[in-house]
Amino acid sequence: MGDSEVSENIIKPRDLILIYLDVKRQFLIQATANLKLSSDLGNMDLGDIIGKPFGYVGETHLGNEFYCLKPSSADLMFKVKRKTTIVYPKDLGYLLLETAVGPGSRVIDIGTGSGALTLVLAKFVAPDGMVFSYERREEFIDNAKKNVERAGYIKNVKFYCRDVPQEEFSEKEVDAIFVDVPEPWGIVPKASAALKGGYHLVSWSPNVEQVKRTVEALKVHNFTRIKVSEIVEREILVRQQGVRPRERGITHTAYLVKAQKVNTKH
Amino acid sequence: MGDSEVSENIIKPRDLILIYLDVKRQFLIQATANLKLSSDLGNMDLGDIIGKPFGYVGETHLGNEFYCLKPSSADLMFKVKRKTTIVYPKDLGYLLLETAVGPGSRVIDIGTGSGALTLVLAKFVAPDGMVFSYERREEFIDNAKKNVERAGYIKNVKFYCRDVPQEEFSEKEVDAIFVDVPEPWGIVPKASAALKGGYHLVSWSPNVEQVKRTVEALKVHNFTRIKVSEIVEREILVRQQGVRPRERGITHTAYLVKAQKVNTKH
Amino acid sequence: MGDSEVSENIIKPRDLILIYLDVKRQFLIQATANLKLSSDLGNMDLGDIIGKPFGYVGETHLGNEFYCLKPSSADLMFKVKRKTTIVYPKDLGYLLLETAVGPGSRVIDIGTGSGALTLVLAKFVAPDGMVFSYERREEFIDNAKKNVERAGYIKNVKFYCRDVPQEEFSEKEVDAIFVDVPEPWGIVPKASAALKGGYHLVSWSPNVEQVKRTVEALKVHNFTRIKVSEIVEREILVRQQGVRPRERGITHTAYLVKAQKVNTKH
Amino acid sequence: MGDSEVSENIIKPRDLILIYLDVKRQFLIQATANLKLSSDLGNMDLGDIIGKPFGYVGETHLGNEFYCLKPSSADLMFKVKRKTTIVYPKDLGYLLLETAVGPGSRVIDIGTGSGALTLVLAKFVAPDGMVFSYERREEFIDNAKKNVERAGYIKNVKFYCRDVPQEEFSEKEVDAIFVDVPEPWGIVPKASAALKGGYHLVSWSPNVEQVKRTVEALKVHNFTRIKVSEIVEREILVRQQGVRPRERGITHTAYLVKAQKVNTKH
Repeated sequence: MGDSEVSENIIKPRDLILIYLDVKRQFLIQATANLKLSSDLGNMDLGDIIGKPFGYVGETHLGNEFYCLKPSSADLMFKVKRKTTIVYPKDLGYLLLETAVGPGSRVIDIGTGSGALTLVLAKFVAPDGMVFSYERREEFIDNAKKNVERAGYIKNVKFYCRDVPQEEFSEKEVDAIFVDVPEPWGIVPKASAALKGGYHLVSWSPNVEQVKRTVEALKVHNFTRIKVSEIVEREILVRQQGVRPRERGITHTAYLVKAQKVNTKH
Repeated sequence: MGDSEVSENIIKPRDLILIYLDVKRQFLIQATANLKLSSDLGNMDLGDIIGKPFGYVGETHLGNEFYCLKPSSADLMFKVKRKTTIVYPKDLGYLLLETAVGPGSRVIDIGTGSGALTLVLAKFVAPDGMVFSYERREEFIDNAKKNVERAGYIKNVKFYCRDVPQEEFSEKEVDAIFVDVPEPWGIVPKASAALKGGYHLVSWSPNVEQVKRTVEALKVHNFTRIKVSEIVEREILVRQQGVRPRERGITHTAYLVKAQKVNTKH
Repeated sequence: MGDSEVSENIIKPRDLILIYLDVKRQFLIQATANLKLSSDLGNMDLGDIIGKPFGYVGETHLGNEFYCLKPSSADLMFKVKRKTTIVYPKDLGYLLLETAVGPGSRVIDIGTGSGALTLVLAKFVAPDGMVFSYERREEFIDNAKKNVERAGYIKNVKFYCRDVPQEEFSEKEVDAIFVDVPEPWGIVPKASAALKGGYHLVSWSPNVEQVKRTVEALKVHNFTRIKVSEIVEREILVRQQGVRPRERGITHTAYLVKAQKVNTKH
Repeated sequence: MGDSEVSENIIKPRDLILIYLDVKRQFLIQATANLKLSSDLGNMDLGDIIGKPFGYVGETHLGNEFYCLKPSSADLMFKVKRKTTIVYPKDLGYLLLETAVGPGSRVIDIGTGSGALTLVLAKFVAPDGMVFSYERREEFIDNAKKNVERAGYIKNVKFYCRDVPQEEFSEKEVDAIFVDVPEPWGIVPKASAALKGGYHLVSWSPNVEQVKRTVEALKVHNFTRIKVSEIVEREILVRQQGVRPRERGITHTAYLVKAQKVNTKH
């Protein structure tokens, strides 16, 4: 039963904080003693930040206000230490809702990369679910582990340094599979073997040809209800002088594929 | 620690199932004994569906295959009994990641409507979080309750039939506020009072003017890091004869606003 | 020198008029004696319309106003008698400006279809230019001829019923080639032979694969500065209750290709 | 009758040429004797370019190929010497087809700016039409004149340095009015007086509020069939490694308004 309690809104050691001066000056930091931060709008003494509430308003030594804000899931993703491109929150938000993933789910994440996806999945399957994250390049796993650890979800992730599809997944009957590799079609047979019947595989790729081959592989391997989409985010500037969309920005990230596994007939 | 167990992939009484024939014939049903379903592609005898695994392939009396699939979060939203327009999954997925909401969160949802948003929020704050859902029209609450109950998240929702902003919210220090009312700007002062410092309010509206007034109210009431976006979903048809975007579809749903509360300076 | 004179703004026999009641009731008609028109908002007696000025306000027998407006180029296109899909004005406007076509140009149009493109090209190359329009299905040419004739540009068009690329184009050194056929790549060699060096070929297709093959053929046949685009039109509703994009509409028409011919090196 | 002749495809003195090395190295130049051009891919000796055909392939002193191409209308616009932002070809192409403008039209262009719009309008109303271009800032007119002259359409343009709406337009019964000023609504009454009944006024503005006020003014001043759109151009990259939209680019230019004048009822 939902016996939720009000958690105290006080910054504790190791909490992540989004320090915000303005749209061009925002920093995701971890609360520690003796913390200092500097920017061209002045230095910020965060030495006494622990014990302050989120939402706290500070001032740089040059007199500019800064705010201690709670990071969103998107912030946790965007502010990882990156060694690869990451999935965009606009895309992940869509994909997350296209699956059945929620608290308690067991999810495979193939193509750990920087761990941005891994940590958000871990957040949403917590407290009792698990993300099984596969990556063949060991140096990426080290970085991803640090990113997941910093976000506080390391208990909900198990990493594998393994070259799928050469090798098998260790899990069976997982609730969803998230595929972020250059050749998703190669993963499909082993993904199908690891996934619960009726549940979701999602994948994303920048090029049309990748999507086409992935869809073909999904059809061959007994997936149904296959849908491909793209999600375009458009920022709207609301200013004194007028409202209009931003003039330049991101115009493409990836095509998103989702499909559901069908059991082989008796 | 994430001590997740493989849950058995067997359809149990009251489970929701997505019965899928093709893209135009899909039904969200609840597993009961003696269930029958009919379509122009034939009748489906689901009398023995309980105990079958998800992913099961059945056949209509006309010999057409149907699949028993696990509903996604988006399915749960789209398939509610509607008395109002609902927030779109593409928009909610984005907004969810723009907040800190996750398992255990306490969230206010203002403008219950059909409960599509309520039940997905409840899903993502489970098992220990709560959604406090406010709606001034009693008949909408009855319908929304049934929708949330059917989805299995009624324990994580508390409904209020109350005319905010005339009356107060009962909660303090909530982790997020989701605003789906025609005049979001009117909610802002009481929302600010109910929200934790540093945390997120999100709102969405179809018209530019609504967004503009909401942003102005947010600025006046000490919110920062205000961002307005729209999310456009574009379906891509991957067919034998060629890949191309769908020719007709939804071209606008809502403008999305998010902001974070700043504490008043002592 | 541009010795332009004010033309009298009086409706003459055979003039095309856009009769406009509201956005759902608009008719492109040709001025004749004894003209009558009917709609669910009432009958319109246009018997004395000749001699009236454009912009004239009439009244149906039920007392609703209607307006006698000058058709735009887009109206001329949209209101042809259609036997095929037509190129959209949003796409043609873009393509037109991506070429050097203007008054006096000699242009090949391959894939006449309903003649919507043909007549607008003819309009823009008039008074001294020519459109050479190729179509292999004779019944389409008959219809297209009527459409071009009605629009008043028949003098500037020469039709060929010919199966390009099986047969040659009759022209050499044309100023642009507009390609609207299902397999544009097949046209490229003969198009190159008919086109002036340095000038433009444009083509459009609904599917990605068509565009890819066309681009490959263009590269092989000495075209350069190849660019592929799509043009999305989004209508904005400006209403008393608020401004917002239209909620449903066209989401894809075609991918647009343009390229310029390079001479073979001596 | 369209008695069009093949014009010789030879570069003549004062012809505009688009010198193209690659997508980042393209130059619009005017043919003169002793012309030289330099780039980081090498120097181009164009001393003997006069008399060569368009489509000619040259070589830089470093051995890189360059092409002498015919400029499109869009090139003529983009390559003007700019003192202001210009209307985008994607927007102008759409607007042009939303009017009745063609060879012989008499058009008012208000807000000359850099003259990019002026010269393309002049091109499309040639040989016998006229563009009446109004600008209140004299220094802009000087620059615009040079741009129009260079493009070869100066005979089809008459410039006015005049502060509309303070002063009147000199023309009556024009075939279209193109409005590119920050406050289009102020122009509407005098535009209505100068425009033929039933014909088109078009206007564009970056902000929603501008569009709203313009639409309101158009309604008050007897315009009908008002439509607001935006045109989004999305470039598609067709590459060996795959087809996908460009990742970053222009996401907003302007909202486009068109309307048609109705006569006052006698």
